[in-house]
Amino acid sequence: MPYVTVKMLDGRTEEQKKALVEKVTEAVSETTGAPKEKVVVFIEEMTKNHYGVAGKRLSDQ
Amino acid sequence: MPYVTVKMLDGRTEEQKKALVEKVTEAVSETTGAPKEKVVVFIEEMTKNHYGVAGKRLSDQ
Amino acid sequence: MPYVTVKMLDGRTEEQKKALVEKVTEAVSETTGAPKEKVVVFIEEMTKNHYGVAGKRLSDQ
Amino acid sequence: MPYVTVKMLDGRTEEQKKALVEKVTEAVSETTGAPKEKVVVFIEEMTKNHYGVAGKRLSDQ
Amino acid sequence: MPYVTVKMLDGRTEEQKKALVEKVTEAVSETTGAPKEKVVVFIEEMTKNHYGVAGKRLSDQ
Amino acid sequence: MPYVTVKMLDGRTEEQKKALVEKVTEAVSETTGAPKEKVVVFIEEMTKNHYGVAGKRLSDQ
Repeated sequence: MPYVTVKMLDGRTEEQKKALVEKVTEAVSETTGAPKEKVVVFIEEMTKNHYGVAGKRLSDQ
Repeated sequence: MPYVTVKMLDGRTEEQKKALVEKVTEAVSETTGAPKEKVVVFIEEMTKNHYGVAGKRLSDQ
Repeated sequence: MPYVTVKMLDGRTEEQKKALVEKVTEAVSETTGAPKEKVVVFIEEMTKNHYGVAGKRLSDQ
Repeated sequence: MPYVTVKMLDGRTEEQKKALVEKVTEAVSETTGAPKEKVVVFIEEMTKNHYGVAGKRLSDQ
Repeated sequence: MPYVTVKMLDGRTEEQKKALVEKVTEAVSETTGAPKEKVVVFIEEMTKNHYGVAGKRLSDQ
Repeated sequence: MPYVTVKMLDGRTEEQKKALVEKVTEAVSETTGAPKEKVVVFIEEMTKNHYGVAGKRLSDQ
């Protein structure tokens, strides 16, 4: 606790995801007062054909 | 905003998913008053071995 | 199945939410081929102090 | 209703997942009073590079 | 890990929710092999006007 | 995009939540390369009787 879910398009490198988990954990810990050890981060990736804005999927643009 | 997530079994075609995003966006926009440009749709697919009703997975029926 | 979650700011009327569930169900049924009886819709409301874009909460703008 | 989501690392066998759905459904039905037929279970698997605790992904440990 | 979310209509007593968390944790631990100490359970309650099946909210039936 | 959900116990002040949204947005933008304008943050609060670890709710400890 806290539990953080980051949902984004696939395509980021492992280095980016590693840094994402590290930096988001720090940001959450500093602002909420929760110890870093208690912060959990989940990454959820989606593909362009499963994500739409304004009625149009990214894969159709 | 609004953010719509549609969770369903995999197997739909790309044409079906394209229409799904388009029609759901229209339905949400018309009924909530949010402009179409602001409506976001996520599709999440699941497999039959990860979905159970009444204690039984679809893949076990 | 399918399961649809609509996440949006609070403030819509009961009439709007009623129509939202009805119209989204129709849109999902028509485009996915799932019978209307199988479509489930969840509404999740959020407040302006729990929603941020570009680093700023709506309640702070 | 109720709808149960179990999020866990991948790697469990089909036998384990089958038992998971069965036993969780029983536990939910017995304690909430909902009939077993109404209990829905979703399994969501994640990989070690998409799950971090204390700022570090499992794949980096 | 695992993380379990139980989404259901409000109205259950505290005793029921307490038993729900206890029994679901046992069911998940026994079937997945995860130690009980690692199992996390979230309860999410919804109201009848935010839940619809077959295009109709429970509050409208 | 990306969409970030932070789930935590209630009790944080508005100042803490404001800072949380700001700092998490910066962390996500810097590490994923997404422009800050595209980062969306949702805060979800839970109560101690709806959150359990090791089979026991926080409200029962």
